[in-house]
Order: sequence, then structure tokens, then C-alpha cells
Amino acid sequence: MHRHSLDFWYDFASPYSYLTAMRIEALAAAADVDLRWRPFLLGPIFAAQGWTDSPLNLFPCKGRYLWRDLARQSARLGLALVRPAPFPQNSLTAARVALALRDAGKTALFSRRVFAASFGEGRAISEPEVLTSILRSLELDAGRVLAQAQSTEVKARLRAETEEARTRGLFGAPSFLTTDGELFWGNDRLEEAIAWAAGDRPGAML
Amino acid sequence: MHRHSLDFWYDFASPYSYLTAMRIEALAAAADVDLRWRPFLLGPIFAAQGWTDSPLNLFPCKGRYLWRDLARQSARLGLALVRPAPFPQNSLTAARVALALRDAGKTALFSRRVFAASFGEGRAISEPEVLTSILRSLELDAGRVLAQAQSTEVKARLRAETEEARTRGLFGAPSFLTTDGELFWGNDRLEEAIAWAAGDRPGAML
Repeated sequence: MHRHSLDFWYDFASPYSYLTAMRIEALAAAADVDLRWRPFLLGPIFAAQGWTDSPLNLFPCKGRYLWRDLARQSARLGLALVRPAPFPQNSLTAARVALALRDAGKTALFSRRVFAASFGEGRAISEPEVLTSILRSLELDAGRVLAQAQSTEVKARLRAETEEARTRGLFGAPSFLTTDGELFWGNDRLEEAIAWAAGDRPGAML
Repeated sequence: MHRHSLDFWYDFASPYSYLTAMRIEALAAAADVDLRWRPFLLGPIFAAQGWTDSPLNLFPCKGRYLWRDLARQSARLGLALVRPAPFPQNSLTAARVALALRDAGKTALFSRRVFAASFGEGRAISEPEVLTSILRSLELDAGRVLAQAQSTEVKARLRAETEEARTRGLFGAPSFLTTDGELFWGNDRLEEAIAWAAGDRPGAML
């Protein structure tokens, strides 16, 4: 029998993706589920819905509430939470770097550091210097990786990932996709997505 | 020491409000929290955000996902789920009736029956006959209550409730407000809202 697996789709600008990124590894390991970390860009998907900004900015009441909710959820999880300025951060370069590191198997590790720098410390992940310092902390050749991230191949890879996200019906982040095509949206559904991937599927016949 | 209490704000057209309505009493009783059932209308609040329909209809990808999520959540909770046609149902009369029954202390009971008829059985709660049969099942004088629901006083009551929801920052349903002004949104936050109302307040100092 092959092992269970789950795709974790995220955008580095998404605060709820941060909450998921900081806890998904332990939950997946406990359930014996393999993870695929899949950075993509929400911007083009929001734009297709007619949104030109983060919904946290577009809908002020909802935005105020969501930051408060994020503060409460972070406190529950024992995580620091800082609101990056400006919000949302441009996540394009970080996403390209994360995909450039896929073949080396460093995407997950790099991604967690980016989320921790952004929402844990309020560092501007749109700045190359911040990404450089993260890459160095992982003992990677920052200059080489950043150059790779700007290659035609990696740029195309990110476009293809974002297009796959769109065609598979993703509309927000974090999202989770099981191998049988079941979609879960939001940090609140992380436990359910992992349970589904591991074989616990209430409502599968609906 | 006075008892803890929590306001439960809902719209009869909201499917996640149905999931909450069917389970909130048991959770509140277990935590020794008094509930106030507060029907209001989401329509004017959505309109103020520029939405002319339910977000489940306006954003097709998200709408498809949310119906699937509702099916999974209902299965987990052991609740039937039918999608009322048309969706959303016009909830104006049902909300007025629920408020007309406030003085008699029947709002909660009536509301649960309306939700069960709508999302449990797919009955059209915008039809007066459906509301009539629910009122009769509660051994109430349906004609008298429906006439009261159309009175100037009850109409004004619903407008005032909806205006209070708006000024207190509500943007969706179900929502929960504690006496210290803490807002929680969504069936997913029901347990947290009740815990907060009962005194468990992680993140209160943030």
C-alpha cells in the first residue's frame, strides 16, 4: 500500500497560511501523511474574481475582524503575530525562490522561515535582502538561488502552479488537496484535510 | 456573580447558521452560558459591501467549495443538508416572525424549526404556508403571529436589529458577540465564542 499524501497550497502573503505552515508538519507526521508544499500566487486568482487587493483590505469590517481573529488564533497556537507593512507583501520573489528550491528538497524549510520572518517578525519578504538572509541561514548560496529564481524555467514553473491552482478550483489560501481530489480551504480545515488524506472520510459518499 | 451570556446573530438564509442553530443550545448549556437569539438580515450588510447576492452565488469557485464543505460538516454533525431552491431564500418574513415571538420567549424554538425546515428538508421558508405550518406545530395562533410580524413595530424592530449588527461590525452569519464586545464569525468559531463568554479568553490582552 502506498503512503498517504496531501498537497498544501499557500501564498507567502497569506496570514492564515502562516498559521498552517507553522504546525502542518507535526500533524502530518502524526497521521503518517506525506506533504507536498505548493507555493502559488493568489493575486491572479483574486483578480479573476474581480478583486484588485487582498480581501482583508477590500472589505474593511471583515478585514478588521480577520486581524483580530488572527491575533486570537496565534495566541491559542503560541505563535507571534505581526502585521507586515505594507500588507499584503508582494510574494512573487519568495514564491519563485521556494519553487527554485524544490529539486533540492528545501521548499518546506525555506517556506517556514519566510512565514516566520514575515508574520512572526514583520520583516519585508518582498525585499531581496530578507530572502538573502533566510537563504544564508539555511547555508545556501543566496546569489545562485536568487538568480535561479529569476530564470525562465522557474518563472514558468510558478505560472504553471498558479494555473493548476485555478483549474483545480482554489480560490484562497491555505488550501489542501488530497490525491482523490478533495479540496479543503483554510487553516481551520487543516486537521480535517489530514484526516481525510489518512483515510477518515465522513461525507465521502455525498 | 451574574450569569455569562452570548448573542447569536443569524440570518435564516445562511446555511452555516443552520449548522450552528442545530447545536448551539447544548454547547451553551454545558458551559452555563445564556443565549440571546438575534435574527437579522444579511442582505443590507452585503449590499453595503457592494454585493447584490449571496457570496455563495457571486463567487462560483468559492460557492461550489462551500456547498461541498457544508455537506462534509453536516455529515460530521449527523445533520441532513438540502440546498433550498432558490438559494438564498428570502428570509424577511421568517426574521420578522422570529422577532414577533421574542416577547413570548419562542424565538429560539421557532428559529430552529425554520432552519430544520429549510436546510434539513428543503422547504421554501419564503412561503407564508411553510411559516404557518411551523407556527402551528408550536401550537401558536399562526394568523395572529403572522399579522403581528407585519406590524409597524416588528418591522422597525428588525430594521433596528440589522442596523445594530452593522454598527457592531458584523459582516456575515452566524456571528457571536460577547458582553465584552468580542466578535466571532462562523460556525467554526462557535466553541471558541462560548468558551470566551464563559471566561476562557486567550489573546484577550492583545
